[in-house]
Amino acid sequence: MNFELHHTDGKARAGLLSTDHGIVRTPAFMPVGTQGAVKAINHKSLEATGTEIILSNCYHLYLRPGINVLRKAGGLHRFMGWGRAILTDSGGFQIYSLAEFRKVTDEGVKFRSHIDGSLHNFTPEDIIDIQRAIGSDIMMVLDECTGYPSEKEESARANSLSIQWAERCRQRFDITAKLYDHDQSLFGIVQGGIHLDLREMSVSALTRMDFQGYAIGGLAVGEPVEDMYGILDACTELLPVSKPRYLMGVGKPENLLEAIGRGTDLFDCVLPTRNGRNACFFTSKGELNITNSRYREDFAPVDSECGCNVCKNFSRAYLRHLFVSKEILGLELATAHNLYYYEWLMRGAREAILQNRYDAWKREQLAEYNQETPHYSSIKQRRSN
Amino acid sequence: MNFELHHTDGKARAGLLSTDHGIVRTPAFMPVGTQGAVKAINHKSLEATGTEIILSNCYHLYLRPGINVLRKAGGLHRFMGWGRAILTDSGGFQIYSLAEFRKVTDEGVKFRSHIDGSLHNFTPEDIIDIQRAIGSDIMMVLDECTGYPSEKEESARANSLSIQWAERCRQRFDITAKLYDHDQSLFGIVQGGIHLDLREMSVSALTRMDFQGYAIGGLAVGEPVEDMYGILDACTELLPVSKPRYLMGVGKPENLLEAIGRGTDLFDCVLPTRNGRNACFFTSKGELNITNSRYREDFAPVDSECGCNVCKNFSRAYLRHLFVSKEILGLELATAHNLYYYEWLMRGAREAILQNRYDAWKREQLAEYNQETPHYSSIKQRRSN
Repeated sequence: MNFELHHTDGKARAGLLSTDHGIVRTPAFMPVGTQGAVKAINHKSLEATGTEIILSNCYHLYLRPGINVLRKAGGLHRFMGWGRAILTDSGGFQIYSLAEFRKVTDEGVKFRSHIDGSLHNFTPEDIIDIQRAIGSDIMMVLDECTGYPSEKEESARANSLSIQWAERCRQRFDITAKLYDHDQSLFGIVQGGIHLDLREMSVSALTRMDFQGYAIGGLAVGEPVEDMYGILDACTELLPVSKPRYLMGVGKPENLLEAIGRGTDLFDCVLPTRNGRNACFFTSKGELNITNSRYREDFAPVDSECGCNVCKNFSRAYLRHLFVSKEILGLELATAHNLYYYEWLMRGAREAILQNRYDAWKREQLAEYNQETPHYSSIKQRRSN
Repeated sequence: MNFELHHTDGKARAGLLSTDHGIVRTPAFMPVGTQGAVKAINHKSLEATGTEIILSNCYHLYLRPGINVLRKAGGLHRFMGWGRAILTDSGGFQIYSLAEFRKVTDEGVKFRSHIDGSLHNFTPEDIIDIQRAIGSDIMMVLDECTGYPSEKEESARANSLSIQWAERCRQRFDITAKLYDHDQSLFGIVQGGIHLDLREMSVSALTRMDFQGYAIGGLAVGEPVEDMYGILDACTELLPVSKPRYLMGVGKPENLLEAIGRGTDLFDCVLPTRNGRNACFFTSKGELNITNSRYREDFAPVDSECGCNVCKNFSRAYLRHLFVSKEILGLELATAHNLYYYEWLMRGAREAILQNRYDAWKREQLAEYNQETPHYSSIKQRRSN
């Protein structure tokens, strides 16, 4: 993997991430394909949204279909028939949020599967081996997540452990080879909760290990948005300019634009897909809940300025009918539209950065986004499903 | 609508049905899009299966989205964004199978909606008016369905009533005009249960009314398959050669091939879509249930001889993973494959008829279809969902 920083406008960055599965123009949004499939959308429609990289997940893929299957298939790209780039999260967050039982020791984490209650054990070394079998273009280190709020002492302990684990992942990465014919990179994950000194300690330790990119984890877990932005500012100030920065699990369009303005490059979130499956359509003018009766006889597209296949071919009235009638096609069309919107937003941000007008563009977008009365109460965003 | 009979081979027929929404080569299979959407597949993928006509349903569309919405949208084609042909069933079968309450009088049928229990009334005239608002290329008369088994007296009464209703539909059709810029045709529905004399009476009465096509209804409701074939033989013997014949709600690949051999041209059934959503894949070599553990590490396509996008891009192992992991994408891919298979079967039948070798081709297909041990117990077929 190679990362070129093309341009900066204030702190906002336009870059190019090159992988053996194609380029990723940054800022970039990664749709979530936890189990080796982005929910409710086929690969061709996903490509049509402009998606250049998807996120998948170690914890889920390890449980199903299992590492043996992935190895025999020749890795996840071949298994799922996806030719573009894949980043895999290590599963630290899923063990924290999904597993029925977990016990963290210095050695690693023991947990019960959320599927069948079976007992498993992940060491930092295992996580690298699993991601070698998956063959993701970008791998993540194992980290320990703490929730919000959490005591500083607890955050400090988890942070130190995450640093140790990152070091062990780095070493395992160095002494293992790729299993397939494409290269893999490893990113560190900055932790430390909302405590600035812990964040600084994390960045400083991780950058000494020299990863190919850095994720900022442990945010969007319930903390006030100002805290999130403060932590982001501090982290991006300290992280090396030449490496990509990935803000994990964020988020709403507004959060993305603010985070881009603070110097982050990569994002993932379940919002466009999950909220889409709950009848929420994201548009340049705000969110709309398509089941609202006001759309019963509204034959306009969801967003008349949107260039996606859904807006070009279907009306609000038809989309409403699909959701009201519980037609599966509604889920696909909402997902396709929302992902197109997120990718469109990223392309717009990149363009604005290259033209040195990111701040003005961001303000215009947010003003337009917030002008319509929101008639949708957002489902709580989460880092992954 | 125009129907040309291109060739007959024994009783099997190859024809061409021309509508203002394109041609339909017969024998033809119509995927079921009850509520204005074929379940779990988008229109582009549906077109890619070779589908030239879909089936929708008066009863469902009348309840949701409602006739006013369809009229304002400019008809169902525009509402759903489907440019190819649409046939609508009248809803007689749905009132019989879905409605919470129904009371049949000579005047029409009163029923409660299966959605909200609201009370409604359909007369034969209403059914024509509703289908004018839907704007289907082919409309069906209102009929009264009886189940299997049913007393002959009951079948006779329902048959006589269906004949009266057909006459009233015909008259309403003649004095009403299309609402949009494309033509609509009306088909009669032959009823009479498994009683040959009632079927003869039905055919004789309906053909005097001179419909543009004839459906054979009231089959595949639980009767032995020999009875179904016997009734089919009798009906196609009596029906005018120059008009298309539509066998409603049938069925399994074997049933379709037998029915084509007995001179029917059009078919619809929920099997490829519904069974697909239940992990059953239809192939030239039989059915397979993709969740079977034997496919865990099977990286071959579902059917290596199949030309569909699913078989060209995905393995059995990946499809199994999607179903086991409850990914919505599995539903779409199974639906797309199964519909491609049904359309492929129809194209093969047509080709064989044109080459005067239908019987031999049919025997080859059935031998191949039945050679693999079936490891799937079929879900009972029904005329519609």
